[in-house]
Amino acid sequence: MAKVGIVMGSDSDLGIMSKAAQVLEELGVEYEMTIISAHRMPDIFFDYAKGAEAKGFKVIIAGAGGAAHLPGMCAALFPMPVIGVPIKSKGLEGVDSLYSIVSMPSGVPVATVAVDGAKNAGILAAQILATSDPELLERVKSFRERQSKSVQAKKEKIENVGYQAYMKSM
Amino acid sequence: MAKVGIVMGSDSDLGIMSKAAQVLEELGVEYEMTIISAHRMPDIFFDYAKGAEAKGFKVIIAGAGGAAHLPGMCAALFPMPVIGVPIKSKGLEGVDSLYSIVSMPSGVPVATVAVDGAKNAGILAAQILATSDPELLERVKSFRERQSKSVQAKKEKIENVGYQAYMKSM
Amino acid sequence: MAKVGIVMGSDSDLGIMSKAAQVLEELGVEYEMTIISAHRMPDIFFDYAKGAEAKGFKVIIAGAGGAAHLPGMCAALFPMPVIGVPIKSKGLEGVDSLYSIVSMPSGVPVATVAVDGAKNAGILAAQILATSDPELLERVKSFRERQSKSVQAKKEKIENVGYQAYMKSM
Amino acid sequence: MAKVGIVMGSDSDLGIMSKAAQVLEELGVEYEMTIISAHRMPDIFFDYAKGAEAKGFKVIIAGAGGAAHLPGMCAALFPMPVIGVPIKSKGLEGVDSLYSIVSMPSGVPVATVAVDGAKNAGILAAQILATSDPELLERVKSFRERQSKSVQAKKEKIENVGYQAYMKSM
Amino acid sequence: MAKVGIVMGSDSDLGIMSKAAQVLEELGVEYEMTIISAHRMPDIFFDYAKGAEAKGFKVIIAGAGGAAHLPGMCAALFPMPVIGVPIKSKGLEGVDSLYSIVSMPSGVPVATVAVDGAKNAGILAAQILATSDPELLERVKSFRERQSKSVQAKKEKIENVGYQAYMKSM
Amino acid sequence: MAKVGIVMGSDSDLGIMSKAAQVLEELGVEYEMTIISAHRMPDIFFDYAKGAEAKGFKVIIAGAGGAAHLPGMCAALFPMPVIGVPIKSKGLEGVDSLYSIVSMPSGVPVATVAVDGAKNAGILAAQILATSDPELLERVKSFRERQSKSVQAKKEKIENVGYQAYMKSM
Amino acid sequence: MAKVGIVMGSDSDLGIMSKAAQVLEELGVEYEMTIISAHRMPDIFFDYAKGAEAKGFKVIIAGAGGAAHLPGMCAALFPMPVIGVPIKSKGLEGVDSLYSIVSMPSGVPVATVAVDGAKNAGILAAQILATSDPELLERVKSFRERQSKSVQAKKEKIENVGYQAYMKSM
Amino acid sequence: MAKVGIVMGSDSDLGIMSKAAQVLEELGVEYEMTIISAHRMPDIFFDYAKGAEAKGFKVIIAGAGGAAHLPGMCAALFPMPVIGVPIKSKGLEGVDSLYSIVSMPSGVPVATVAVDGAKNAGILAAQILATSDPELLERVKSFRERQSKSVQAKKEKIENVGYQAYMKSM
Repeated sequence: MAKVGIVMGSDSDLGIMSKAAQVLEELGVEYEMTIISAHRMPDIFFDYAKGAEAKGFKVIIAGAGGAAHLPGMCAALFPMPVIGVPIKSKGLEGVDSLYSIVSMPSGVPVATVAVDGAKNAGILAAQILATSDPELLERVKSFRERQSKSVQAKKEKIENVGYQAYMKSM
Repeated sequence: MAKVGIVMGSDSDLGIMSKAAQVLEELGVEYEMTIISAHRMPDIFFDYAKGAEAKGFKVIIAGAGGAAHLPGMCAALFPMPVIGVPIKSKGLEGVDSLYSIVSMPSGVPVATVAVDGAKNAGILAAQILATSDPELLERVKSFRERQSKSVQAKKEKIENVGYQAYMKSM
Repeated sequence: MAKVGIVMGSDSDLGIMSKAAQVLEELGVEYEMTIISAHRMPDIFFDYAKGAEAKGFKVIIAGAGGAAHLPGMCAALFPMPVIGVPIKSKGLEGVDSLYSIVSMPSGVPVATVAVDGAKNAGILAAQILATSDPELLERVKSFRERQSKSVQAKKEKIENVGYQAYMKSM
Repeated sequence: MAKVGIVMGSDSDLGIMSKAAQVLEELGVEYEMTIISAHRMPDIFFDYAKGAEAKGFKVIIAGAGGAAHLPGMCAALFPMPVIGVPIKSKGLEGVDSLYSIVSMPSGVPVATVAVDGAKNAGILAAQILATSDPELLERVKSFRERQSKSVQAKKEKIENVGYQAYMKSM
Repeated sequence: MAKVGIVMGSDSDLGIMSKAAQVLEELGVEYEMTIISAHRMPDIFFDYAKGAEAKGFKVIIAGAGGAAHLPGMCAALFPMPVIGVPIKSKGLEGVDSLYSIVSMPSGVPVATVAVDGAKNAGILAAQILATSDPELLERVKSFRERQSKSVQAKKEKIENVGYQAYMKSM
Repeated sequence: MAKVGIVMGSDSDLGIMSKAAQVLEELGVEYEMTIISAHRMPDIFFDYAKGAEAKGFKVIIAGAGGAAHLPGMCAALFPMPVIGVPIKSKGLEGVDSLYSIVSMPSGVPVATVAVDGAKNAGILAAQILATSDPELLERVKSFRERQSKSVQAKKEKIENVGYQAYMKSM
Repeated sequence: MAKVGIVMGSDSDLGIMSKAAQVLEELGVEYEMTIISAHRMPDIFFDYAKGAEAKGFKVIIAGAGGAAHLPGMCAALFPMPVIGVPIKSKGLEGVDSLYSIVSMPSGVPVATVAVDGAKNAGILAAQILATSDPELLERVKSFRERQSKSVQAKKEKIENVGYQAYMKSM
Repeated sequence: MAKVGIVMGSDSDLGIMSKAAQVLEELGVEYEMTIISAHRMPDIFFDYAKGAEAKGFKVIIAGAGGAAHLPGMCAALFPMPVIGVPIKSKGLEGVDSLYSIVSMPSGVPVATVAVDGAKNAGILAAQILATSDPELLERVKSFRERQSKSVQAKKEKIENVGYQAYMKSM
């Protein structure tokens, strides 16, 4: 049963939001992903957000751009953590998306990640579930270990071959 | 019967939002003002926004600060004009409020006024109703005329007495 | 008789502003579109804005970029609603256009939409006219219904085929 | 045993960060609060962040202002969720604090809340723990219910007494 | 005969704009100062700006805040230099005022000074007139000399008494 | 004899700054254009700025990007008007250039134009000289007239052929 | 013999800049502090910056606000490190000061510290000199040690007495 | 023995950071360059920063983007100067990188250069070492001389051939 819902308001956000799905797959976390616009189909959105707990969701990841209301409205209706992903907008370069998501009023938090930070949203969702799932916690740690190893390999390479050779090989 | 609904998410916005009410009173436009938080009481908010047309509202004025979702969510649920008033926030000086309201996605406009511009929201609501109400249009014109006269008096005064005397009399 | 005037200061804004015209056509609202620069032909601009009421205009949509004065000067001269469209500028990315339009002084509102939000300006103009035109209101509602259906179709598709297949088909 | 660690870099942040502690107390969540500067006592900081899992922490709430590195460095060392609270700075009004916390690189998320949003950080920590603690989830829901009731009371009051009387009573 | 017109849209700008007048007096340049709102009394404004050349004005100094259109509209109507003074606004801290004045379209320049920089506007107006008035140029040079001397005195004082004594004497 | 000096700190600004030269040519104003870096050749810069009056310059147009000090340092050394052109920078999109030029301290104005607004700098220089040169003033007026006619032609075209045909012909 | 020159453009910056002097005293580094405006007394400024090496200065700390050119012009004339302190300005809140100092062109660096960060400028100057002065390096390390101990004391206090008692004692 | 350490968090920063290496080579300063992520390999980072003094480093140049913590954490652990290079980020255009590096708390300075200003970071490192190395100081001066000559050649060229010919030859 999916414990994470991923939702976005438009399929133009799918290129970014798919990274949340991919990292959850890598971490072995089940999720459900869909497209629902809080602005264009508010009734369906309401049903989604209010029904999320009954479906077994423990975390919702919501991505939106511009006047990004989807994460905050999820947070108004769902009692567990909502992670907001500000999508870079055409008009104001993502600052509008970030501010619309992070500046939530007292009482209704949204866990905001970086602009276009969908991968981190997926990792954060896994970390949240890992607070009560030791096996998932181990997978998160292994993931971070692999990530660390990958940068360490770069460290060794540049120290061995020098920056000019490194740059040529990129 | 009230044609304008004024709504805000918190009574901390009342000092600003009352200016919309005052100018509507001056222009002879009936309104109803209330406090509803889209984030803290989403069901009541939904009922409010969906029932607004049946109540006879033709325009909604919604004021909100920070991650200001109230105007946009009204616009998602109410088919006639929604005017958004960005309230100056403590955290990011009102830029967050402005961006959260003005950057609405294609298909769901919010008529945004200046930060803390509730008086202008009231005037705009009257102008909207005046598109089909010649008497109200006359009252709007008279209001503008009085406004113009008031600045003209200042023009005459400063030209007559000079800026030093003018400043002393302020 | 056209009830909506669409005006912009330069034909470089036409690519954006034509979206206002298109959506008004779709909603069955007559409009007149022209190019008038408040800065470069102020007399003609004055005649336009002052004559707009006599021509039967109920709403003006004005688009401008940079130090965008066209919407505000329309609002100074026309007693009914003026909708301002901030056009993304080369110099300061549209923030200048937005601030120049939205921060109007008390007494002279401009209904501001998002940067490059001409389509929403058209919809808002229709909503304003729909406050006294039940048939237009029905067309606005149908438009929103179609818009909602279009996103619902995406919702169903991604739930059926999954995000990978969905992305391949985009 | 405390499941939430609250840490800040300076006692000048205590006025804000104490709100996280207060809401956790209200929600019946044990926490430990301390003052550790990642910049001024990096070794002690390292021991703290690396030892946090062994102490039983499931979530860390870290508040910092300016070039706010404390939350991100916690996230580098602690495998479960880190919540970052950007503290309003004197120099750049909190924008620096927000950007320094939210723009984390891929692989190391920080769950960012609003500038000075320590209360929401506390609620979010509780929501995270509530994903595996049904009793806490009930307390979170009750908290939200009380919060909703409090705004509803304001709604009723303003509808009953009008805004002038309401404002006088504030 | 006054060669410089000073104009502002509201007497709330008078505290700032009076500094332009004072420095022109100090430099022996005749000016006329008045209050005219381009938004609230557009006809009178038009007459003012179009009649300015005939009155003998060689430079106009226009101060405005928020969506500051007064300087740009002067520049549209007056063929000689217009100096714009962005007045610090309540809503967006003067950034809106600055952007609304400086980002003028190609063909219609406004010589923009700093936010609240009315004194510099006055000096610039004198410098403009000094391009054809050798006596005024000498007065401008003397003014700059006095200004330089005043900072030199501070240099000598701090070097003589040290910063602690200097600060105590401030 | 050249009355206008055009100076920039780097030949990477020449694409923009050449527009100042072109419009001065069109307006029949003699100028001298050169490349001098205040940062990289401060002695030569000092000689240039201090010698400008003796050479007969009445106005200096200085273009610079990033931490743009050239216009302000010209203003420190040259007693007549200095026009600053903020060049769009790679790092911070021209906001740094604009702020570095416009926020001059009291006593030392720079007449700032829009980001990349070199053409307007040229026009402004001509307007400054036109305050004492009736023939140049006539040329400035003719220039503005041609400019106005050019937009009027666009107005007529779009009103005649409609926006679709207009757009196809662009 | 003083190895550090501290310079600022106005005595209004002295309250901030004196913190650089104080920390240099604490670290046993000789300095000379003066007030010189690059804009208002450019010749004296030139002599100062060009003569600084001969006087034995190894580092210059320059503080300035607004269009802050003093640090950059020092860097143009002095071949060793220049540290720039952006002073919070009235007009644009210090963002202008920061951008004017940090965005130096390639070839002419300024070591920029935080807005109003004069104390850190002093420490950085000492660190620069400490690269060749082992005794000074020891004093820098001791300074950091004391700094660390001071925060550690706060850590112990809050862990012992709790945040409520701590806050009462502040 | 290398006196300068160059470190960056990701090889995506190498294109920019290699410019620091190149200018140090040109100035005859030995350096070591590596890739270490403070977020992804915090233990290795700690060892690096704590061991830097023992290795003989006198200066560290650290480049990072987004929530750029690498320079500040180096400054927490290394007692001599740390130079921070804000790398232009995808999300927020480098403003986040700049603010995360420059706004360091009192007591822990980072010498910040421009966004993507790695070349200047290299020059600044050389200038720091030159405070105690007269030969290096001569090389720095020669470098600046060559730089000055290069712009002087452009000055002569444009004055000789005119801007049109100059532009054609670019």
